[in-house]
Amino acid sequence: MNGASSTPDQGAAGPLIPVLAVVGVGLIGGSFAAALRQAGQVGRVLGVGRNAQSLARAVELGLIDEAVSAEDAAERADLVFLATPVGGLRDVLARMLPHLPDHVVLTDGGSTKAEVVDAARAALGERIGQFVPGHPIAGAERTGPEAADAALYRGRCVILTPQPENSAAAVALVRAAWQACGARVIDMDAEAHDRVLASVSHLPHLLSAVYMEQVATADDAATRLALAGSGFRDFTRIAAGSPEMWRDIFLSNRGAMLTEIAAVRAVLDRAERAIDGGDGAALLALLDTAAQARRHWRKE
Amino acid sequence: MNGASSTPDQGAAGPLIPVLAVVGVGLIGGSFAAALRQAGQVGRVLGVGRNAQSLARAVELGLIDEAVSAEDAAERADLVFLATPVGGLRDVLARMLPHLPDHVVLTDGGSTKAEVVDAARAALGERIGQFVPGHPIAGAERTGPEAADAALYRGRCVILTPQPENSAAAVALVRAAWQACGARVIDMDAEAHDRVLASVSHLPHLLSAVYMEQVATADDAATRLALAGSGFRDFTRIAAGSPEMWRDIFLSNRGAMLTEIAAVRAVLDRAERAIDGGDGAALLALLDTAAQARRHWRKE
Repeated sequence: MNGASSTPDQGAAGPLIPVLAVVGVGLIGGSFAAALRQAGQVGRVLGVGRNAQSLARAVELGLIDEAVSAEDAAERADLVFLATPVGGLRDVLARMLPHLPDHVVLTDGGSTKAEVVDAARAALGERIGQFVPGHPIAGAERTGPEAADAALYRGRCVILTPQPENSAAAVALVRAAWQACGARVIDMDAEAHDRVLASVSHLPHLLSAVYMEQVATADDAATRLALAGSGFRDFTRIAAGSPEMWRDIFLSNRGAMLTEIAAVRAVLDRAERAIDGGDGAALLALLDTAAQARRHWRKE
Repeated sequence: MNGASSTPDQGAAGPLIPVLAVVGVGLIGGSFAAALRQAGQVGRVLGVGRNAQSLARAVELGLIDEAVSAEDAAERADLVFLATPVGGLRDVLARMLPHLPDHVVLTDGGSTKAEVVDAARAALGERIGQFVPGHPIAGAERTGPEAADAALYRGRCVILTPQPENSAAAVALVRAAWQACGARVIDMDAEAHDRVLASVSHLPHLLSAVYMEQVATADDAATRLALAGSGFRDFTRIAAGSPEMWRDIFLSNRGAMLTEIAAVRAVLDRAERAIDGGDGAALLALLDTAAQARRHWRKE
């Protein structure tokens, strides 16, 4: 440590990332910048976005030092963090490409990875080695720069899905950045990531929303909602999430979603047959497996 | 009010229920007794149950004054509260019937009502008018007399499903008892009750358990459970509930469960088609209906 440094957490050799660019300075991007700044691992932070007002607020909040174009960010940054919807990723990367020095590392925070990899390959071509796909498993109801929180990633998992073309140095830089944010970093295959996330994140949201839609559109919806209690409250909490964001995630993860829906349907079929046929033993076995697994889950 | 009374909340004319009998002195039955005693609306409390140790504990805790047989309870009580699984209801009622004076009112706390009404009619025959079916919408993870809580029903809904043979006086007594516990009392048709509860209580438990079973039995269950986050946590909390209790409820409410499962399946079919076909507009409409309904629900 260098006692004369103005940022005491910063190594003597300077910050891990002299210039960071964040594309999309909201909850995910803003929190990444804030966490790295708090850790003393970032020099200057550039912000890119379509909403000038939001970028001005990000400057005010100290999340970024200045707002720049995607082209400028590509030219000046050491690490570019893309915190944009997957739908816009290909365009942003295509705009950056002509300005992108060889040493710049890019990463993202998208909730699905196979489609992100496809978009990045389409945009970057033989420069795909500079892009290390990632997904921080963290989020909150709030959005925008105001929601950014240096502590958001502390103790959370970040999954990287490195590509064959990535250099060890590029993957190491992204890993070190997330670790500086306090996250645990795990490597996975992109397809495995999408399948697991479809199962433990996307499907609960879909099922909760499907169920909630059915209750809300029933003839006696008012009576139902008036008599709903604490089980309903917990089960449907995630149905209140952003419809636009979840639509994008479900469509982006189409293949894995369809596989997981089919797998859950098979269990529902089994439960329905047991109820229909009065098969208490089969029903009890199913409920017991679920209850045991939930009671032993690590997070309660 | 009578200033000389030892229980100041008790009316000058004496308590609403001079002798209360509770069959099954656990969370539901014990809390009913405790709430009525706290309100000064009960004189003596008799407890009936198969577990002598549990009844002794209920006496120690002051929930009941003495443990008696079902026959004795029928002879001595003014109001009998049956807080037993629906499977045992018919037998208990059949044992009570030969000892049951005409003025005694019986009620229950079962989660489904059509099957309870059938069991009560089969056991009581032409004396069915003495039985007023009820369902307090309250519960907790804990069970047994230790879990009893005089405040459990405060502000909660209790649904009564009066039968044509019930006298106005019998219904009024049960209503007044629940109101003395602090509950809001609603009258419904037994079939409507079972349909609504299938929808807002039983189905969330089934879907949460079905989903949890599928995750827990997947080849990569350990990876899935390690990466599950807060959405998963909320969505699966109710899957940890008692397998035996939920098996009984699902089978007891078979008809309504099958109807509601079919209705949710229809919405799931629609969501799946939208994902499969890349129909973002249909998916957004569904998710938006769900999100709006959940955000406007009264209890957050």
